[in-house]
Amino acid sequence: MAQILKGKEVVDALVETMKKDVEALKARGVAPTLGIVRVGERDDDISYEKGAKKRCDSVGVGVKQYLLPADAPQQQLLDVIHEVNNDKGVHGALLFRPLPKHIDDNAIRAALLPEKDIDGITDGSLAGVFANIKLGFPPCTAEACMAILAHFGIDPAGKRVTVVGRSLVIGRPIAMMLMHKNGTVTICHTKTKDLPSVVREGEIVIVAAGAPENATAEYFREGQIVIDVGIHVKEDGSLCGDVKFAEAEPIVKAITPVPGGVGTVTTCVTIQHVIEAAKKTAG
Amino acid sequence: MAQILKGKEVVDALVETMKKDVEALKARGVAPTLGIVRVGERDDDISYEKGAKKRCDSVGVGVKQYLLPADAPQQQLLDVIHEVNNDKGVHGALLFRPLPKHIDDNAIRAALLPEKDIDGITDGSLAGVFANIKLGFPPCTAEACMAILAHFGIDPAGKRVTVVGRSLVIGRPIAMMLMHKNGTVTICHTKTKDLPSVVREGEIVIVAAGAPENATAEYFREGQIVIDVGIHVKEDGSLCGDVKFAEAEPIVKAITPVPGGVGTVTTCVTIQHVIEAAKKTAG
Repeated sequence: MAQILKGKEVVDALVETMKKDVEALKARGVAPTLGIVRVGERDDDISYEKGAKKRCDSVGVGVKQYLLPADAPQQQLLDVIHEVNNDKGVHGALLFRPLPKHIDDNAIRAALLPEKDIDGITDGSLAGVFANIKLGFPPCTAEACMAILAHFGIDPAGKRVTVVGRSLVIGRPIAMMLMHKNGTVTICHTKTKDLPSVVREGEIVIVAAGAPENATAEYFREGQIVIDVGIHVKEDGSLCGDVKFAEAEPIVKAITPVPGGVGTVTTCVTIQHVIEAAKKTAG
Repeated sequence: MAQILKGKEVVDALVETMKKDVEALKARGVAPTLGIVRVGERDDDISYEKGAKKRCDSVGVGVKQYLLPADAPQQQLLDVIHEVNNDKGVHGALLFRPLPKHIDDNAIRAALLPEKDIDGITDGSLAGVFANIKLGFPPCTAEACMAILAHFGIDPAGKRVTVVGRSLVIGRPIAMMLMHKNGTVTICHTKTKDLPSVVREGEIVIVAAGAPENATAEYFREGQIVIDVGIHVKEDGSLCGDVKFAEAEPIVKAITPVPGGVGTVTTCVTIQHVIEAAKKTAG
């Protein structure tokens, strides 16, 4: 029976710290505030936004919304980004993507200041996570994985780590973050030969391949820590991850559930970044 | 007996291509030009500069030198960087580092435009190599390793690759570049446990640990391709790499020599980047 690494435990601990941080900032006259920039009315975005606002409320972080119609011209979105950049009362921006196709994603990302890029989408944030310097913020999902490991006292130092997936939102940044923490990281992807055996090498395994329940029993061995980043809706409407939980759980030492794992922590990290950004402005 | 992957063969081939590229650019009215920015009179810098100028001459690339005294104030160097940025006749800048201690390296790096950053030192170039987008240029040593593999027809796709070293000038960028070419890359460092066995896993091994002749027989096995990035002066004045060549060579399939390997190709790549930068301005 594996230890189940529940996101809620991590969130509860983070929320306590965040509440104290917000109180301390307010005592110094700084009210940490999240800017939410949404173009259009996609269900996914609205659902995530709802969760983010709820979390902001629960820890005392303010929210300022910038809502644009789905057919808003690119310049209008650029104007909003500049407004966020110049507004000292807004400490970080959450910009929903993908953007509508008539808008150049690169131009928008380039316009956002890295210090307000709490979701790790700018080139500055990418350089920061690659170079391990304080520039921008890492993508929230990657940071959520790190928060789970830290909360449960799992230190990557000196351990073999296998990361499955090389996307810019999770695979590559989490590989760098685990390497910065002295893990010996192997990055796998669709062109990796004999993937199951490479995954079995890992003492810590991050599965972010984007394929539902693809990692089956043969991927795992005793003693492993498994972080499942995937989240998929099955035909019956239930949720599953990239790992076939029922097969992996009896084998490994510890595993995150889906739902209730990484996803649960991600929103929380977004808000934590707003607080960190506010701390920097408070000097 | 291993195949010796000689830098000179790679350079000879690159030089032929570069000459043709320069001719084509000049026919379009663009004279590719390297800006060399040097603060002070360090022997290492002067020696590298001499090699770079010679290589520029041999392929028809122009050189513009910006020489500052070792005690030049930071603003003077910033002015030079801005001059390079704004000079349409200078396509790339080679800035010798480390800079004197009274100058803030980050401020100087931030001032240089990524499109003129032929040595991959700006945050833009780092983001480019991490995200695999055309922003700036990868560090030249990393690109030299890739050029050697390409020249000798060694495709990283689907292969296990071990990179020893995680520096920003070579370990991390080469790991990303090999991953972008579909290698399954493991990054090792000083905290890696049982380093020899992890190196033996690699079908391609990049040794960039910075420790003279540290990789001995136990690191290697039959069939491996070994790229030795290190270059060190031994007590008797001779040069050696990070790999104990005499022990590795009889075991592996192919290996770069030191001297005459990666280092030989690096200057060439720097000049190649100038030509690439000039091509971009030529549209």
